[in-house]
Amino acid sequence: MTQASRGTGSGDEHHPAGRVRSLVWRDGALHLIDQRHLPLAFETVVCRTAHEVAEAIRTMVVRGAPAIGASAAYGMVLGARELLERGSGVRAGLLEVADLLKAARPTAVNLFWAVDRMLGVLEHWPQLSDAELVDQLEAEAGAIAEEDARTCRAIGGHGAELLEPGGVLTHCNTGALATVDYGTALGVIRAAHSAGKQVQVYACETRPFLQGARLTTWELLQEGIPVTLITDNMAAYVMARGLVKSVIVGADRITANGDVVNKIGTYGLAVLAKEHGIPFYVAAPVSTLDGSLRHGWQVPIEERNPQEVTHVLGQRIAPEGVSVINPAFDVTPNRYVTAIITEYGVVRPPFEEGLARLLQPEKRGATSA
Amino acid sequence: MTQASRGTGSGDEHHPAGRVRSLVWRDGALHLIDQRHLPLAFETVVCRTAHEVAEAIRTMVVRGAPAIGASAAYGMVLGARELLERGSGVRAGLLEVADLLKAARPTAVNLFWAVDRMLGVLEHWPQLSDAELVDQLEAEAGAIAEEDARTCRAIGGHGAELLEPGGVLTHCNTGALATVDYGTALGVIRAAHSAGKQVQVYACETRPFLQGARLTTWELLQEGIPVTLITDNMAAYVMARGLVKSVIVGADRITANGDVVNKIGTYGLAVLAKEHGIPFYVAAPVSTLDGSLRHGWQVPIEERNPQEVTHVLGQRIAPEGVSVINPAFDVTPNRYVTAIITEYGVVRPPFEEGLARLLQPEKRGATSA
Repeated sequence: MTQASRGTGSGDEHHPAGRVRSLVWRDGALHLIDQRHLPLAFETVVCRTAHEVAEAIRTMVVRGAPAIGASAAYGMVLGARELLERGSGVRAGLLEVADLLKAARPTAVNLFWAVDRMLGVLEHWPQLSDAELVDQLEAEAGAIAEEDARTCRAIGGHGAELLEPGGVLTHCNTGALATVDYGTALGVIRAAHSAGKQVQVYACETRPFLQGARLTTWELLQEGIPVTLITDNMAAYVMARGLVKSVIVGADRITANGDVVNKIGTYGLAVLAKEHGIPFYVAAPVSTLDGSLRHGWQVPIEERNPQEVTHVLGQRIAPEGVSVINPAFDVTPNRYVTAIITEYGVVRPPFEEGLARLLQPEKRGATSA
Repeated sequence: MTQASRGTGSGDEHHPAGRVRSLVWRDGALHLIDQRHLPLAFETVVCRTAHEVAEAIRTMVVRGAPAIGASAAYGMVLGARELLERGSGVRAGLLEVADLLKAARPTAVNLFWAVDRMLGVLEHWPQLSDAELVDQLEAEAGAIAEEDARTCRAIGGHGAELLEPGGVLTHCNTGALATVDYGTALGVIRAAHSAGKQVQVYACETRPFLQGARLTTWELLQEGIPVTLITDNMAAYVMARGLVKSVIVGADRITANGDVVNKIGTYGLAVLAKEHGIPFYVAAPVSTLDGSLRHGWQVPIEERNPQEVTHVLGQRIAPEGVSVINPAFDVTPNRYVTAIITEYGVVRPPFEEGLARLLQPEKRGATSA
């Protein structure tokens, strides 16, 4: 992957008229906002191979489960084109490309979902030539990206009705940067704000990677939605002071029973919300559901580089030689979750039944709130 | 205040043979470890006036309630000497010095306690000349510092019996750097380790000032006590994984009912401990008790510079223009506290009675556990 641009990005295609789009497919390459350097620098990187996409996912140039899924879909297109150009057979080689991309982040199920959907193109079009297959894969990736943008707007619409006016606390970044456009939990906040509800966002900074401090605040400031940045350990304080009417987060994977695997720190917020009688909402597309797992502790929790904890933006903060753990995610048991907001509607406890219905397309209509 | 030295500090008087002493009084000046730059740099600053001591407290060159108290006591000595040298009357001017020092940090009650104890010298020795008063004040400050070191060892002894072997989670820094020597909550861990208990410390990094990441890990590494650094939002995760047998923290003020005012993030840890059935201990000297206040929300919560949140060690992490709150402390209601460990013994709920007894010196014997 190569760095494409530096600057404030105004007028950039990722960022037209204040709107953010985490990824853009143009001239046969995947252009990504480099989320590692925001908000200090607005830079983009260009991926021209599947390997470059996997590396961008692994190093968190792009992050957020839906954005990872859409990026991986384009990674499959790039991998297929490489196979075509080498003449080594797209059908024969694409499974290896899929494995490469799936290995980049082990927890986000949207990644697997998107890659498997791309593999489904091979089955669905058995008669296509390799060149035609690459075109078809490109169309499918485009469909995934556009569906994601529509999905987020639908989630926003369903969730906006639930949010009470007042303080809403959120974690990590679940906005346009985490998706293709608009966002999941942040999409709900965006939709509530657009509908005229007075919302005051408390954004947890979200150590170690600081997605809240760097990305969520940046997105909300551009939209003029009131936002107050807090360190993660201030969440209990703002709840005790009565400043928070609801908590809303995204998800990287939701298991059949409604357990939520999401950014480290989510579980603690859920416990605190329960203790303060504050509703705890999870906003995620159906592609986040993993019906194959019964509960959240079955999900492999990605352990990331210790340097993310011992350093902040490259600067050391802890003594050399100290032991560190760095789980990227935690598990919020379903009993702490008030409702799960999807593009098809709102699911409430007991979750097993409602989520199972969402996994069967013909039954989704019955779920809408 | 002037910077006295840079370097690793080995062989320094603050740091003899691996032992840490946050403050040293030598040649009529207060020498402080500059805790803002640890562990990246070991530097000391020298205060020669009361104003310099107040500034060192305000800017957190020295922090931790007991260390602030002892520093302020020496600040009173320096203020008295300035008055003597100007010939403006120690008795007439010392109240103003006291106000200057008390204003440096509004929450730590040990600061007020130490300054008032120094003012008590004036009443107790009405016949002394100004020069004799300065000597007497110097002796009293020395007594406060030495008592603090002894107090911490007594707290450690009482608390070590309570700690179960295994994981112990702590917040902020409550070690030798937060006191004159040895520490309060960290003193308990130290004493348990010395007594041969297998303890594995989980140190919360403690944003925004990172006392856990910078100071607690540094102290424990030097003592060879096993320590794992976590970000604040990983506390719930390590509890859910069963890695934590007890939580122990210090206190900046404890009100008559046992509410604990301590570093921001403490309250959240207390809620999480309760949810996981983990005992939550508070270790603090009796000078931390404020019998004049009925409950914790009566304590003024210091709101510090927003830059501590938008920056990490001077580096910006959040976009310009974002709103921030930065309360330095929070309030943990007494119902979350398993026991309060003091130098006179362990107090358990209901706290009102036990704490009231500690505030009456003649009744303290009956409190010891």
